[in-house]
Amino acid sequence: MRRIHVIGIGAGDPDQLTLQAVKALRSTDVFFLLDKGEVKGDLTRLRRDMLDAHVPEGSYRVVEARDPERDRTAGGTSYAPAVEDWRAARAGIYERLIAEELGEEDTGAFLVWGDPSLYDSTLGILQEVLERGAVEFAYEVVPGISSVSSLVARHRTGLNRVARPVQITTGRRLAEGFPEGVDDVVVMLDAHQAFRRYADQDIDIYWGAYLGTPDEILVSGPLAEAAPRIERLRAEARERKGWIMDTYLLRRDPKGGA
Amino acid sequence: MRRIHVIGIGAGDPDQLTLQAVKALRSTDVFFLLDKGEVKGDLTRLRRDMLDAHVPEGSYRVVEARDPERDRTAGGTSYAPAVEDWRAARAGIYERLIAEELGEEDTGAFLVWGDPSLYDSTLGILQEVLERGAVEFAYEVVPGISSVSSLVARHRTGLNRVARPVQITTGRRLAEGFPEGVDDVVVMLDAHQAFRRYADQDIDIYWGAYLGTPDEILVSGPLAEAAPRIERLRAEARERKGWIMDTYLLRRDPKGGA
Repeated sequence: MRRIHVIGIGAGDPDQLTLQAVKALRSTDVFFLLDKGEVKGDLTRLRRDMLDAHVPEGSYRVVEARDPERDRTAGGTSYAPAVEDWRAARAGIYERLIAEELGEEDTGAFLVWGDPSLYDSTLGILQEVLERGAVEFAYEVVPGISSVSSLVARHRTGLNRVARPVQITTGRRLAEGFPEGVDDVVVMLDAHQAFRRYADQDIDIYWGAYLGTPDEILVSGPLAEAAPRIERLRAEARERKGWIMDTYLLRRDPKGGA
Repeated sequence: MRRIHVIGIGAGDPDQLTLQAVKALRSTDVFFLLDKGEVKGDLTRLRRDMLDAHVPEGSYRVVEARDPERDRTAGGTSYAPAVEDWRAARAGIYERLIAEELGEEDTGAFLVWGDPSLYDSTLGILQEVLERGAVEFAYEVVPGISSVSSLVARHRTGLNRVARPVQITTGRRLAEGFPEGVDDVVVMLDAHQAFRRYADQDIDIYWGAYLGTPDEILVSGPLAEAAPRIERLRAEARERKGWIMDTYLLRRDPKGGA
């Protein structure tokens, strides 16, 4: 039976690998590295560096493939269908990778930035491949340090306040309104800096980009003051590197409740 | 200047330590192990095993202290004050530990189960100790694999569904009502199995106890079927071991949206 590891490799700092992840890397025959256009160079290199550092040379193969681009022009209600098309296209690619590149007794691995459980499609796609029924395999998940954990660790703050909830959501949802019933909100996948809409409110922001890498940028403080600074730093960094990965925590009524 | 590491050590599996955590362990002079009554034996032993496995003998000291008990009899609106008293008492203990057990150039460490950012009071207490002004130190946070990440990895599912939010909350809050605006909810610190209230709804549960340890128990499925099973397993395990640590994900309308 073919085996697949879905390995969370942390948010960018190679030392965020867990011992469990290192063991999983070392028991892998074939690594599938899927790249997404503009971030290809940097992120593929970081993953190859991890393999060089932890897995004996000659004990594995690397197969690189191109992830199909998601149709990001589709807005509003067509978001879900665009995601579905993209997932189906990816399922076809994953199915071929597993069927054609992995021997019957081999173990393959997908390396996922952060934690495979959070805003990552790998698990959903593998489930879809299994449901298609063309190829069989067993798979397991190795959890990783998410960019969310990494963000708040670098800011030395908690995700939640005592006995209170925290919500993790997307920039698109935040643009529609501040979530109900929570004052602590982590935002991921925000290409449009939806936090700007709330700059007149009593909210602190903890923002970070390229977390755990030499390019890391951190900004925190009252949103009204921090927002213009983040906008400027974000635009500069994106221009310089060609891509950006950032996330942030919004803390409403920061003095209310310890 | 005294230095403090706040190290997330994962949810129970010693292999969930990150390489960064191992490095932090090895650069620590004094480990502060605070125990909480009933869970003392097992959890203190697990932490000592981690030190034995990763840190050269003779290079560190361990200082054990008793965490003051929180007044858990205080219900409803008095929850916050009880927590505050307890935090103040803990701040006093932490302050003495740092001032009396750590030399001016020493590095101390607090080992936190899971991730220090999620329902853990260590960061808040250290901040309070600094604000008291009696002892100075620098501190940094090493993120860890949370029980939340561990739970969903073992169940091989995501925390969120595509482009949708997830909320992390407490059993006490869930008992008051299902959170607004989200269908995926992770519940921590639930001593009263608040999920039972929702057993007549179209909700799947992913439950786990003693995650990552040899005692791990996993149950998943439609809540109506899983709830009685979890109740029984939970009661048996708690009786057998004397304590339980469990957490769960509720997924409302599980077939709605991929």
